[in-house]
Amino acid sequence: MTDHFPSPIAIRNLILPTPRGYETTDLTMAQGRIMALGKHIPTAATWIDGTGKLGLPGLVNAHTHSPEMWYRGLIPPLPLELWLNILYQLPPLTPEQVYLSALWTAAETLLSGGTTVVDHLILTPGQELETIAAAVRAYRETGIRAFVGPLVQDRPFKEGVPGGTGVSAPGEVMDTKAVLALLQAAVDQFHCPAEGIYIMVAPTGFQQVSDALFEGCCALSERHQLRRHTHLLETKAQSLLAQEKYGGSAVAHLNELGFLGAQTSLAHGVWLQEDDWSILARTQSTVVHNPLSNLRLGSGIAPILAYRQAGVNVAIGCDGACSNDGQDLLEAVKLGALLHNTTTFEYRHWLTPYNAIDMAALGGAKGLAMADQLGTLAVGKQADLVLYDLNQASLLPHTDPLGLLVRGRPSQVVHSAWVSGRQVIAQGQLTTIDLTTLHQALRDQAPALIRPVATVEPALEAQYRAVMGL
Amino acid sequence: MTDHFPSPIAIRNLILPTPRGYETTDLTMAQGRIMALGKHIPTAATWIDGTGKLGLPGLVNAHTHSPEMWYRGLIPPLPLELWLNILYQLPPLTPEQVYLSALWTAAETLLSGGTTVVDHLILTPGQELETIAAAVRAYRETGIRAFVGPLVQDRPFKEGVPGGTGVSAPGEVMDTKAVLALLQAAVDQFHCPAEGIYIMVAPTGFQQVSDALFEGCCALSERHQLRRHTHLLETKAQSLLAQEKYGGSAVAHLNELGFLGAQTSLAHGVWLQEDDWSILARTQSTVVHNPLSNLRLGSGIAPILAYRQAGVNVAIGCDGACSNDGQDLLEAVKLGALLHNTTTFEYRHWLTPYNAIDMAALGGAKGLAMADQLGTLAVGKQADLVLYDLNQASLLPHTDPLGLLVRGRPSQVVHSAWVSGRQVIAQGQLTTIDLTTLHQALRDQAPALIRPVATVEPALEAQYRAVMGL
Repeated sequence: MTDHFPSPIAIRNLILPTPRGYETTDLTMAQGRIMALGKHIPTAATWIDGTGKLGLPGLVNAHTHSPEMWYRGLIPPLPLELWLNILYQLPPLTPEQVYLSALWTAAETLLSGGTTVVDHLILTPGQELETIAAAVRAYRETGIRAFVGPLVQDRPFKEGVPGGTGVSAPGEVMDTKAVLALLQAAVDQFHCPAEGIYIMVAPTGFQQVSDALFEGCCALSERHQLRRHTHLLETKAQSLLAQEKYGGSAVAHLNELGFLGAQTSLAHGVWLQEDDWSILARTQSTVVHNPLSNLRLGSGIAPILAYRQAGVNVAIGCDGACSNDGQDLLEAVKLGALLHNTTTFEYRHWLTPYNAIDMAALGGAKGLAMADQLGTLAVGKQADLVLYDLNQASLLPHTDPLGLLVRGRPSQVVHSAWVSGRQVIAQGQLTTIDLTTLHQALRDQAPALIRPVATVEPALEAQYRAVMGL
Repeated sequence: MTDHFPSPIAIRNLILPTPRGYETTDLTMAQGRIMALGKHIPTAATWIDGTGKLGLPGLVNAHTHSPEMWYRGLIPPLPLELWLNILYQLPPLTPEQVYLSALWTAAETLLSGGTTVVDHLILTPGQELETIAAAVRAYRETGIRAFVGPLVQDRPFKEGVPGGTGVSAPGEVMDTKAVLALLQAAVDQFHCPAEGIYIMVAPTGFQQVSDALFEGCCALSERHQLRRHTHLLETKAQSLLAQEKYGGSAVAHLNELGFLGAQTSLAHGVWLQEDDWSILARTQSTVVHNPLSNLRLGSGIAPILAYRQAGVNVAIGCDGACSNDGQDLLEAVKLGALLHNTTTFEYRHWLTPYNAIDMAALGGAKGLAMADQLGTLAVGKQADLVLYDLNQASLLPHTDPLGLLVRGRPSQVVHSAWVSGRQVIAQGQLTTIDLTTLHQALRDQAPALIRPVATVEPALEAQYRAVMGL
């Protein structure tokens, strides 16, 4: 990704937030990196006028499932375990459809301030490598930095609900060895950090993953320096399952398996116990907060103010579009900032807009063990830069620009964006792909996919209600 | 408002939601009302193609403060009592500025599906009637149906915090008689239901309002059939104040004063006791839920699922843009729908998208004693109709259109809107005012207003912290 702009680009009079206010400065990028901040601009640079533009580091959409774009809006209000039962009954996607929904996920992420996406990629059964290939192709085309974690498991869905008598989704389980072979093949074919494409190990979550698969993922991660990702304690039912399965904390168990660490990000973390916090802090693991999804599925409010105080790094994700039901990263940042004000009257702990952006940018970078490369605008770091147009209607008036960006309802505010110095948005438009063509393809393909939504299988619902005391 | 379209307009092939799905039908408007639904279209009608459009009744933005648009994004994360202290230190607006922010509030409400706004209007001291005149002028120009409730009080700010030793805002208090004379003058000059402009009695809230003012408002309301509006138990501090002031429930006290009833809407209602619910249900009073504001100010999560089960009508508001920090009604509807999933595991009580729209439309209409005129698309009701373009990118794919509209991130989706049969949006653009001119005026005027934000007065903060045990 470093060869797109051999000559330096400088942005003049850019407004940058500081912990205590704003400064107006110039920024130079070259060879994919930030070369200078301040007024030390090389004379040979291409100039861009940054007047009236707020500059922020690219944010990280730290947890999503791109194929869910096809079904967003569809699933009724249900808790995760029952919602999943419906999701699994929807028609699987072709690789071409996976390609389109990955393009779309990248587009919505970029246009809402993200430059990196973590795609916990749902695989089409029997076409697993083709699914990964399709998503990778889309991410390469859009120019977004992508961490693709094939969503794998080696235990059936029915084991994922306490009681274990639930129903299974069809064709859902590969054996442990086959899963690891698939991941090895994915790494061999697609893992290419120099070009911004990273394969992660991403077993779905302890509820459907054996110890052997976690351990195999750790080995693969060590062999190839892969980031690690998994769902963790999203729901109360999962916390009950952890008791049933491990006789205690799922966090302690994952730690014993060696899965935690500075390269590990854990989606949700709504139902952790206080003892778990110190394990996460000590191992430098990251919790990815998905506030909209947690509301949509009624999972609860993750105590992220407490996590931050305990020294646990927190990132922000949209989660898949079936539980959001969009992919607007600024909306997730807004909710991630505001939701927690209801959890304590001590307003001095509430997140400021600056904290919220820091969480979505540097917090996201830390969760990918990339804090030395991403997450702030600093000389030597990758040039992942987003300019917001402060003259767009939704950012008027010019009060506290960051305050309004984070807490308002920004719409069409991203003016320009660069990923590793490659410009992917200019004048509010994606430069890498044609959105009109994409939208037309989405319209053409959708009717074949959308059917009347399935209902929850009665045996599962009965089991769930019994477990939850409903 | 009924003379704008003397000849019937018919919309063909409109998609309308039903409690169990969707139907495609035609709709005819004439003389400001819905004349027909179905295929019984008068031959003389002007035809509009509704193909690919979802039709909903106009929503009600049931609580806002339009002047706050000028300062949105500005105030740091603080609870209401301290946030107000900063708001009151910001420069007061000129009537011209009030006019612009009312235009802007109307525009954002209309473009996010609202056709009615309840403006609990902050008055510029010494220019109270001019403030009201300016807002009324703006609402007339935009064509939105407006309920303007001059925000009045006869007790100082310092009495609004338990302990009563807080600091006062300058020039804040008029005596009771003067307040009532002002309201009478506002009614005489501006109250004109036939033209869609309604003056309400809207004392700010019991924390700064004497019994005499509540009673005077009731008398005025009865004399002129005015709707009633007030803030009610938004924060825990207010619930403590009610104990201090009344020795018990503020709801019971308002009921004894005769303020509650089918024409009364109460903003927030976060801290009601269970005994209060039956009073509200019995008196047919409405709680206006402002989910974003309640998060922003850390007020809490109003238990609206419980209210609905207790038979209390609930409406949806944006609240002022300093505590939101926008004015997008669909965003408030989304949060009003999702937030409550975290308050009970009984997912069968969670709000569906249909429930959420019903709350924002019919719930809003009920709160204004207008359920016979507004809130559903029914023959004989006012033609307050909004068409959403299902081919806009943010509403793709066509899964469950209402599900995606309510739970997604709709952007620029309002294609057309009518208020009492007068078209106010066509092809996604306001027909009544020029937004470009408005935005330019906002840009021009803002710099004179925006200054470094004030800080909370230390004496008030100390008092607040003591009261809250912080």
